[in-house]
Amino acid sequence: MTLGNVGKRILVGRKLRSTQLGETLLPKRIALPVFASDALSSVAYAPDEIFLTLSIAGLAALAISWKVAIVVAVVLIVVVLSYRQNVHAYPSGGGDYEVANTNLGATAGLTVASALLVDYVLTVAVSISSAAQYAASAIPALAGHQAEAAVIAVLFLTTMNLRGVRESGTAFAIPTYVFMFTILGMAAWGFGRMLFGHLPDASSSTLDLHAEGKFAAGAGTLAMGFLVLRAFSSGCAALTGVEAISNGVPAFKKPKSRNAATTLALLGTISITMVLSVVSLANVMHVRFAEDPATQLLRDGVPVGDSFHQDPIIGQLAKGIFDHFSPGFYLVAASTGVILVLAANTAFNGFPVLGSILARDGYLPRQLHTRGDRLAFSNGIIILAGFAIVLIVSFNAEVTRLIQLYIVGVFVSFTISQTGMVRHWTRHLRTESDPARRRHMVRSRVINAVGLTCTGLVLVVVLLTKFLLGAYIAIIAMAVLFLLMKGIHRHYATVGREMAVDEAERLTLPSRVHSIVLVSKLHRPTLRALAFAKAARPYTLAAVTVDVDADESDALQAEWDRRDIPVPLKRLASPYREITRPILQYVRDIRRQSPRDVVMVYIPEYVVGHWWEHFLHNQSALRLKGRLLFTPGVMVTSVPYQLLSSQAVAEGDERDALVPGQVRRGETSERR
Amino acid sequence: MTLGNVGKRILVGRKLRSTQLGETLLPKRIALPVFASDALSSVAYAPDEIFLTLSIAGLAALAISWKVAIVVAVVLIVVVLSYRQNVHAYPSGGGDYEVANTNLGATAGLTVASALLVDYVLTVAVSISSAAQYAASAIPALAGHQAEAAVIAVLFLTTMNLRGVRESGTAFAIPTYVFMFTILGMAAWGFGRMLFGHLPDASSSTLDLHAEGKFAAGAGTLAMGFLVLRAFSSGCAALTGVEAISNGVPAFKKPKSRNAATTLALLGTISITMVLSVVSLANVMHVRFAEDPATQLLRDGVPVGDSFHQDPIIGQLAKGIFDHFSPGFYLVAASTGVILVLAANTAFNGFPVLGSILARDGYLPRQLHTRGDRLAFSNGIIILAGFAIVLIVSFNAEVTRLIQLYIVGVFVSFTISQTGMVRHWTRHLRTESDPARRRHMVRSRVINAVGLTCTGLVLVVVLLTKFLLGAYIAIIAMAVLFLLMKGIHRHYATVGREMAVDEAERLTLPSRVHSIVLVSKLHRPTLRALAFAKAARPYTLAAVTVDVDADESDALQAEWDRRDIPVPLKRLASPYREITRPILQYVRDIRRQSPRDVVMVYIPEYVVGHWWEHFLHNQSALRLKGRLLFTPGVMVTSVPYQLLSSQAVAEGDERDALVPGQVRRGETSERR
Repeated sequence: MTLGNVGKRILVGRKLRSTQLGETLLPKRIALPVFASDALSSVAYAPDEIFLTLSIAGLAALAISWKVAIVVAVVLIVVVLSYRQNVHAYPSGGGDYEVANTNLGATAGLTVASALLVDYVLTVAVSISSAAQYAASAIPALAGHQAEAAVIAVLFLTTMNLRGVRESGTAFAIPTYVFMFTILGMAAWGFGRMLFGHLPDASSSTLDLHAEGKFAAGAGTLAMGFLVLRAFSSGCAALTGVEAISNGVPAFKKPKSRNAATTLALLGTISITMVLSVVSLANVMHVRFAEDPATQLLRDGVPVGDSFHQDPIIGQLAKGIFDHFSPGFYLVAASTGVILVLAANTAFNGFPVLGSILARDGYLPRQLHTRGDRLAFSNGIIILAGFAIVLIVSFNAEVTRLIQLYIVGVFVSFTISQTGMVRHWTRHLRTESDPARRRHMVRSRVINAVGLTCTGLVLVVVLLTKFLLGAYIAIIAMAVLFLLMKGIHRHYATVGREMAVDEAERLTLPSRVHSIVLVSKLHRPTLRALAFAKAARPYTLAAVTVDVDADESDALQAEWDRRDIPVPLKRLASPYREITRPILQYVRDIRRQSPRDVVMVYIPEYVVGHWWEHFLHNQSALRLKGRLLFTPGVMVTSVPYQLLSSQAVAEGDERDALVPGQVRRGETSERR
Repeated sequence: MTLGNVGKRILVGRKLRSTQLGETLLPKRIALPVFASDALSSVAYAPDEIFLTLSIAGLAALAISWKVAIVVAVVLIVVVLSYRQNVHAYPSGGGDYEVANTNLGATAGLTVASALLVDYVLTVAVSISSAAQYAASAIPALAGHQAEAAVIAVLFLTTMNLRGVRESGTAFAIPTYVFMFTILGMAAWGFGRMLFGHLPDASSSTLDLHAEGKFAAGAGTLAMGFLVLRAFSSGCAALTGVEAISNGVPAFKKPKSRNAATTLALLGTISITMVLSVVSLANVMHVRFAEDPATQLLRDGVPVGDSFHQDPIIGQLAKGIFDHFSPGFYLVAASTGVILVLAANTAFNGFPVLGSILARDGYLPRQLHTRGDRLAFSNGIIILAGFAIVLIVSFNAEVTRLIQLYIVGVFVSFTISQTGMVRHWTRHLRTESDPARRRHMVRSRVINAVGLTCTGLVLVVVLLTKFLLGAYIAIIAMAVLFLLMKGIHRHYATVGREMAVDEAERLTLPSRVHSIVLVSKLHRPTLRALAFAKAARPYTLAAVTVDVDADESDALQAEWDRRDIPVPLKRLASPYREITRPILQYVRDIRRQSPRDVVMVYIPEYVVGHWWEHFLHNQSALRLKGRLLFTPGVMVTSVPYQLLSSQAVAEGDERDALVPGQVRRGETSERR
């Protein structure tokens, strides 16, 4: 059983009943990398976003970067502490959607769900775009083609996920640990060299950095404050993915909640260490990092121009720290790229799972629900990839512009989830009488309230500083999703009421069955349909053909008589050369004469093996069937005739049936 | 009965059996406009093409235009004479496809069909583009937006045809006669003014015309000869549409063939008169007409530039001849525009009809065959419009560039058809002994042989002069269509053999029917399916549910027992949480235990009224059904449950059934 499935089951939030349950429980050392790739990978772009936002105000402003990073780290600590409460309160792995749904009602839950769906798309777009930047800094030929590279990477991930290749725990663990040790090792090496005074400056330190726009003319404190807030909200990208562990509690070894909480603390520590190390080293090594390098960066007073490729900060640090050991740089670039792709891949697992939960609750088409369904999964994967590609292409794989859309969803979800947690503790405090546990709950509620305040403040800051820069797009997308899901829910509710069985309702059997077999030609499918219909021993049985062409009908009648077929052939007149109307009329006439009977219409159908063959067969049968189903008291029976081309498919089914342990690729089985 | 239908029936080439037959026969005065709009409309662009091709060689070359026009007229006479033979030989209205098919075999027929299909698309593109040019010359604001106008016109025609608005004879007759009398009246007025010395020069006569490219430097005789040939092949656009009458013989009043032949002669005379009048007047009035007016035309030695709008020749003539009577010009422009749209509309009728014939012969999907089928018609209309729009947009509605693709198809069809006719007479001469009729046949064969020679020569000229200019696109399109239709034919042939019933084959009844009803929830659709299944009194009956979720299944079982439903509920284990496989397995097990029995699977289906509701319901039922049909010995019965939203559709059906004389719009009835 692969970890992808594990994650899926966990998020669905129900007990695993299968016997393989034991194998799936994760020790902390595997759980950390499995759930951490998304959160850790943001160190690849969050410091960059802090720097380049500040760069707008010029070189002096870059010096504030470490203060901004510390505030980000504080928020990260608060969020980690808050989610440790979630982990203890929802050991079944509720997830933000469940927390909001349970404590704040359906509307809050749906808001979180919309935010999360949008964020999954952005996780893919941002992570892959950032990976493309790293690839371009390691492979200079890629520079300028990041969008193409990013789209290809998304298509690659899509293919792998569609083919059902899921990462095993090891596949997740190795690159994540390599990434952690590489970054932390680089930081340690850098700080060591600094202590001994051997740390070189970054190559960009020789460049001059000019402020942009109004800041070039010296802007006021207000503008500067706003810019710092913007840098802070961009830096908060480091927080994305922290919630993953709280969704995954059931996958931990016992004691689940405690292990999960410990892992969460570990994740927070590593994440903060990494971000602060990178920001400090960038300050120490005088990294120059600009929003618009072509015009802002100057070499000897002259702008470097469009041909200049600005490496990501981690890349610049690696080039400097490993200046005599170039494999070091390539290891950093490669492991960063890989973890970013892994982070994107978590969205490919998370998106369909959330879709499945939403479908279970009637907010998305119901067939997305079933966990065993590959096709539902495929739809989710394709939708996710499609939107991610649209974003990447629209924003030309520029991480900075995508980041403006990204963080709002995360913090909507954080804030609502923390509100839900406060409500959760308040509700439990109402019934709890044990003083020790009450004290514990009050303490948790305080932590979640602090978390709520903090994330709520960040959300306000993000909205203020990013709304016009792109967050409005994310908000519109969430609103559209919200309304769509609301509409679907309303539809299902209406239909559900319509189909509900009254308590007194019992089976009311129709009196008799009248069968008709639709005939256009006398070929094997027709003979089979006649045989099957006759075997069912209906009250009446007739073969029916529509007299569109008298010559053809006469020929059919003649062959019918000649072969002595033991079913009467009924010819329906069709003065206007139609098929559907005479048959509908005939069926209605039977029902009119005996309203308590039902009519069973047999349609001979060809079963074909290739998709394109469908265009050549059965189209009219399908359409006729569509009309017949609107008529009350009618059943439509397809009698298949398997053409030779269908045998490969049938044999595949047969093999599946014989070896039930293996899901055949492309299997479409699913829950009704 | 509308004329559109008449045309359709005629082309299908079978006897009309309905009682309205009498009404549909056309006197010559109505038949002429009905069948002539395509042929006559080409006078709107054929002279222009002669002029602008010659213009490449400069002003002096324009003087050759009348000689070119005379050769075109001679070819037109030959083609008219040849098709008069077709009319006598195929009074049932064979059409070029039938003539080729009957006399030269399937490959020749299919070649003609491919050429005709491509030509229908080009008829729409060329006629509508030309109409847009006329509109632009009457409404200066349109200049530069011809492509947009043309696309809108195609969409308009598409909508009208999809809504089933067909022209009556009068709707065809009035604009065609208005066009004929306007053009001929203009010509007469012009020649009258010329006789009295009052004919003014065209406004473009003051411009100077410069040769293009190598002709500016004075090219050799060979190049000049090639250019004249090119002008000639462009002028042959005047011949398109002549074959229409030969397809329509059965629509004429008796004596059909003679009336048709007379009408054909009339059409030829009018067409030639118009073309020669226009070309002569253009010469007399010193019309300057250039391929690239912006650079070739000079006013006082300076190129007129891109802002210059070059009116079509007929427009220039009208402006000059009616210089004191501006309504005359507008009448000419409007009637020309209308006849061009009517010409395009004939393709909207012809394309689906040819498609229907090809479907009858197994070259296109069979459901396109039925004549009464609106949906088949709609598909044809949409395909035609789609390709025409692609052409118009790709070629920016420039008639000159589209013409390069146009004529090759017409002459492929002419040449093969004439070859077929020669073969026809040769075959009949073998058996004919009456000397008078033999003489007549020999004479016809000579005429068709001349026609073959002539059209064959033109085809060679067209290929030589236009291949690289665009004809290759048309030829590739024909080849693709040819191969596609060949492939479809082969497929149908294979399937046909597979399904053919042996002489000795009789109905072999299965012994017993085992029924299962698929159940996911206990709601009304399930109850209805159970009731219907029970009413059919099968040998065994079980309700089957798949145990994906034990809790849900337990709840279902409990409700089942509580309601005391008289059908046993069978729970299928599904360790891998699938639906399809356990059911397939269950069905196969029944078949394995009693191989001579059949299994009938009842699926409760919701019937919904809106297209988008399909995404929310039945998807899994449909997929499951798809898999079940691959299993031999299985029937699948859909038991519909009509949701409230479906009632509007059902009531529409009911109305139709009660008033069978009226075809409801969007009706999907059709031939199986």
